[in-house]
Amino acid sequence: MSVLDVRSDTVTQPTLAMRQAMFDAVVGDDVYGDDPTVRELETLAAGILGKEAALFVPSGNFGNQLALYTHCQRGDEVILGDDCHIVWHETGGAAVIAGVQLRTIASADGVLRADEVKKRIRVGDDIHWPRTGLICVENAHSNGRVIPLDAMQAVWDVAQQHGVPVHLDGARVFNAAVHLGCEVRDITRYSDTVMCCLSKGLAAPVGSILAGPAAFIARARKNRKLLGGGLRQAGVLAAPGILALTEMVERLPQDHANARYLAEQLAALPGIDVNLDDVHINMVWFRLPDSLDSGQLMAALAAAGIKANGPEHGLMRLVTHWQIGRTDIDRIVAVFASVLAA
Amino acid sequence: MSVLDVRSDTVTQPTLAMRQAMFDAVVGDDVYGDDPTVRELETLAAGILGKEAALFVPSGNFGNQLALYTHCQRGDEVILGDDCHIVWHETGGAAVIAGVQLRTIASADGVLRADEVKKRIRVGDDIHWPRTGLICVENAHSNGRVIPLDAMQAVWDVAQQHGVPVHLDGARVFNAAVHLGCEVRDITRYSDTVMCCLSKGLAAPVGSILAGPAAFIARARKNRKLLGGGLRQAGVLAAPGILALTEMVERLPQDHANARYLAEQLAALPGIDVNLDDVHINMVWFRLPDSLDSGQLMAALAAAGIKANGPEHGLMRLVTHWQIGRTDIDRIVAVFASVLAA
Amino acid sequence: MSVLDVRSDTVTQPTLAMRQAMFDAVVGDDVYGDDPTVRELETLAAGILGKEAALFVPSGNFGNQLALYTHCQRGDEVILGDDCHIVWHETGGAAVIAGVQLRTIASADGVLRADEVKKRIRVGDDIHWPRTGLICVENAHSNGRVIPLDAMQAVWDVAQQHGVPVHLDGARVFNAAVHLGCEVRDITRYSDTVMCCLSKGLAAPVGSILAGPAAFIARARKNRKLLGGGLRQAGVLAAPGILALTEMVERLPQDHANARYLAEQLAALPGIDVNLDDVHINMVWFRLPDSLDSGQLMAALAAAGIKANGPEHGLMRLVTHWQIGRTDIDRIVAVFASVLAA
Amino acid sequence: MSVLDVRSDTVTQPTLAMRQAMFDAVVGDDVYGDDPTVRELETLAAGILGKEAALFVPSGNFGNQLALYTHCQRGDEVILGDDCHIVWHETGGAAVIAGVQLRTIASADGVLRADEVKKRIRVGDDIHWPRTGLICVENAHSNGRVIPLDAMQAVWDVAQQHGVPVHLDGARVFNAAVHLGCEVRDITRYSDTVMCCLSKGLAAPVGSILAGPAAFIARARKNRKLLGGGLRQAGVLAAPGILALTEMVERLPQDHANARYLAEQLAALPGIDVNLDDVHINMVWFRLPDSLDSGQLMAALAAAGIKANGPEHGLMRLVTHWQIGRTDIDRIVAVFASVLAA
Repeated sequence: MSVLDVRSDTVTQPTLAMRQAMFDAVVGDDVYGDDPTVRELETLAAGILGKEAALFVPSGNFGNQLALYTHCQRGDEVILGDDCHIVWHETGGAAVIAGVQLRTIASADGVLRADEVKKRIRVGDDIHWPRTGLICVENAHSNGRVIPLDAMQAVWDVAQQHGVPVHLDGARVFNAAVHLGCEVRDITRYSDTVMCCLSKGLAAPVGSILAGPAAFIARARKNRKLLGGGLRQAGVLAAPGILALTEMVERLPQDHANARYLAEQLAALPGIDVNLDDVHINMVWFRLPDSLDSGQLMAALAAAGIKANGPEHGLMRLVTHWQIGRTDIDRIVAVFASVLAA
Repeated sequence: MSVLDVRSDTVTQPTLAMRQAMFDAVVGDDVYGDDPTVRELETLAAGILGKEAALFVPSGNFGNQLALYTHCQRGDEVILGDDCHIVWHETGGAAVIAGVQLRTIASADGVLRADEVKKRIRVGDDIHWPRTGLICVENAHSNGRVIPLDAMQAVWDVAQQHGVPVHLDGARVFNAAVHLGCEVRDITRYSDTVMCCLSKGLAAPVGSILAGPAAFIARARKNRKLLGGGLRQAGVLAAPGILALTEMVERLPQDHANARYLAEQLAALPGIDVNLDDVHINMVWFRLPDSLDSGQLMAALAAAGIKANGPEHGLMRLVTHWQIGRTDIDRIVAVFASVLAA
Repeated sequence: MSVLDVRSDTVTQPTLAMRQAMFDAVVGDDVYGDDPTVRELETLAAGILGKEAALFVPSGNFGNQLALYTHCQRGDEVILGDDCHIVWHETGGAAVIAGVQLRTIASADGVLRADEVKKRIRVGDDIHWPRTGLICVENAHSNGRVIPLDAMQAVWDVAQQHGVPVHLDGARVFNAAVHLGCEVRDITRYSDTVMCCLSKGLAAPVGSILAGPAAFIARARKNRKLLGGGLRQAGVLAAPGILALTEMVERLPQDHANARYLAEQLAALPGIDVNLDDVHINMVWFRLPDSLDSGQLMAALAAAGIKANGPEHGLMRLVTHWQIGRTDIDRIVAVFASVLAA
Repeated sequence: MSVLDVRSDTVTQPTLAMRQAMFDAVVGDDVYGDDPTVRELETLAAGILGKEAALFVPSGNFGNQLALYTHCQRGDEVILGDDCHIVWHETGGAAVIAGVQLRTIASADGVLRADEVKKRIRVGDDIHWPRTGLICVENAHSNGRVIPLDAMQAVWDVAQQHGVPVHLDGARVFNAAVHLGCEVRDITRYSDTVMCCLSKGLAAPVGSILAGPAAFIARARKNRKLLGGGLRQAGVLAAPGILALTEMVERLPQDHANARYLAEQLAALPGIDVNLDDVHINMVWFRLPDSLDSGQLMAALAAAGIKANGPEHGLMRLVTHWQIGRTDIDRIVAVFASVLAA
């Protein structure tokens, strides 16, 4: 029995082609700027993301924190959503690395209201005020929802009016583009810099990209070294990263279709509450009936070879990716059906 | 013509008694712990504030930042209101000195909702999560409103349940007590530590108090040195500070009554909008009619020897203190009346 | 029996004239820039120190740390003597506040060798290197010795060649000028910024000055607020500070002469080892005979009403100041003589 | 003509076996702790290094900085050699990440004198003093020399007496062990924690190890996440890392022998000054004659397909590794001979 892992898309194994690419990679010492495969990846990524330059970094967390550190001076204020990944899941790094003061705004399902952003921007140089150093947005949001382009643009316009840069946490920006039916650069144009992950749905084993203006990336390159992210023969990671950006992005619509299929199947089960309108990308959130014994559910899933994160307060999330197909979904749904029937 | 300064209560001059107290102060080198007047002030303040120990600090800003630095480890998360003084008016110091990550919650007129606080507290030691290091409340709020005791207690109860300490920015906690008709310690019991100012309405020229558990204050004493707040013959400041806590607190009700009188007089003028229910302490906020030329108003006030901060978006604030009496208020209101009549 | 305190010159009581000046001080809210006495002190200090502008700060420690924070970006490298006050006695603040990397050089009695400084300056923008942000010198050194002008100039010349600013910790720079027989500005010309104390030998109760270029001081003023050093009616401290810079500097030669007298008297006692060439300012260092029971000595001093810091590894320091005259010294020496004779 | 790269051992290409190991690696999501190959590497490394636990990190720089951050509280003082890698080549990261105050001691060829360390350790809790948080040593030193075991032990003994932990920057600790003719754990026993590189002479493409007590490594694991070093399918890097620690360490003696052979050949050339006693590991430092035109030398090397870093002030370094054999060395020496003859 094969194991199905639907805890997250971070669990994706590299594809066979990626393994071959690692085997074949032409590499050099990237700290010296000598790795041709890393250079190829960075050039490719900059083009796709619509930015002047790009930098390979060890993780999405690293890329976001590097962006904060490079954009801001210590003590600057950063405006961002209360529920975004940088606030919620990066271990407080913004306070340690960049040394910035967060202004966290309650978001509506991940969407920042431009007027709420605007009223927090510091205008003038009052002795009591920090400088507003950065606004951060996230798309797709780590809650699985995609931010509409007009909401991106509204924040961007406010930022431009006040001369404040915008960073986009685009860990899953390719998923966002699929949902919006646009190019990735149609999204990233509303930000000065963007971080996107090569792992997650794109299945590269390790690594992310930070892209932006050339001068910014030059400073980020030095800061990456300071933070310990200067790698040597990083081409072994860049090679599968190139496949992530070329081959794997093409198949993301399948993950989304599979997520929708999973959501519909779950919705058909008695007592499961799924809002199909919220299924934007490869994540399905749903509410279990109060009567369900979650321990029993998790045991049944485990027995069926299915790895899933347990529900919190009755709310559960399943994630599709390249290793989860239609028949796998049927197998998963069958477990839910049987536990609910019991 | 005497000048009336109603910009803030931070402008208060020391009283004649305070000047005499400075002249007479018995002093020593407080870095060595040798200043008897500082020791007397610290003991007095600890008692009034209902804490084991207290520390004299150069300013309210210093006291708040010292509290953050002493309570937290770098990278900890601090939950506090989006509009509180620490966020709004301390130049981003929390990111520089304590190195903490702020979680700023939209408050309702300065009141933090306990359920909003609760859902931001980090439970468990997930690798993605910072530790919740502190909750900050402010009473009286720098918007001039007093937080009810039950709201204080609700946040305190949540904090206690999760083992998170609470710091009270009590820059004007004596004003809050007057409004609530209670002892200061009835407020400070809902916090582990409290900062209160000896300047502002209490008129000491320089200095504030940080109070809390003895072990906390011992650590704060060393941290105060690190931050450059170890002063030598600080008794010259502690002496008027003692008068602030003994004589000046007694007369705060007059400032509140005068603020109410000012609010009522303004409310009687055509086109001025004052919410009398919001006049809790010595601050009066009101809205000017859109038709009013604020430049003309400010010129008229200046010509009449009245220093005031200009309105922002039509909203204006006047502050009473020991140097502003009833006849002064009549003089101020007369200027408004005449400009409105023109 | 009057108490004689020769532990340090930090213990100096304000003079009667200083107390009167505090009583009479015309003050305003210095955070608003409204305190005329503070402005007068800052203008006076800038002139004496030969700098464009000056800023009143709560302590010498505060002034030094504010200088580091204002000169440097976080992560910059600062070159300074291993035994200077900033390294040795400021509680590690440079790492917390400015966030800089210290390069500590072994000094020869407080003198930094220019060639040792030079070889630590980072030339170029290698990705592995921090920027050299600042060089710090100290004169008079807290070890009681004065750095010769040519040694100051040699470091200054190296700094100028490499475009690195120099900060002078001049806590006792007026003592240094007395010893060198020059104006204070003949010393401070070899630095971009200087901190000097109004307390210590100059006897003001609280406060120090940071002076430098106008643009630097403007930034330092905002940073002072961030660090909690923005005081309200600070004129009560500035007023005695003005006397420190005018009247008290005139009498520093007496303290030096008294220190020399003390050194000579001690040198005449059997078994006490004093290097008279090291007595540059108001500090006398000497070595006690190994046979001496230091507990007995300290008890005898205490019994005679003399406060002194005990010897460390046989090395002891006494400090003269305006409250220690010739007859006081005789009284102190008599205790040593009697203990040595016993 | 094959290219020979003797700039550093950081340029080493992964071996064919390493490429195969990447291809075959069994991987999982290491942020969840699910990667069996990473776990295998960490267990293996802990055993070899003689520590309870180990952690895979993206680079040596990352591992050192993570060690500082995990050992110390912000503001702690760290004692280390003025010329060590952490000071010299890590971009000032210690000030940014750990926020510690460095005490840099002049070393004798990389050896810290225990008495110099001892006199900088802070004893007691004086309010003016930071805590001594850590002592760092480096072996082999990045200057190519190996620190004798008795020098390691002397610093360790001082550290133990004062309860201060020791961190070993062992980027090339396997080279040190070869030179000393001992086990690696005979070196690492004189430190609480150690960082060693899997790249450099051991040829893994990316990654290093931080090892130490289990409780320390648990905290470092969370801190690694904060710093952005939590990787997903890191087993693709751990797999060649395992070969680095098993197969590649066995052949380091060849690199050392080749370095010695290179040194001897160079020493035989007229005008080249090599101290053969300084050739401890795989690095050869030598001085070129003043008369030599370094531009001409570098051009000749480039023309012969040899990548080398140019001399600085006449001093040049060549480094051997698994891709440099005896005949390669002959080819390199021939270029020097011909340029010197010209």
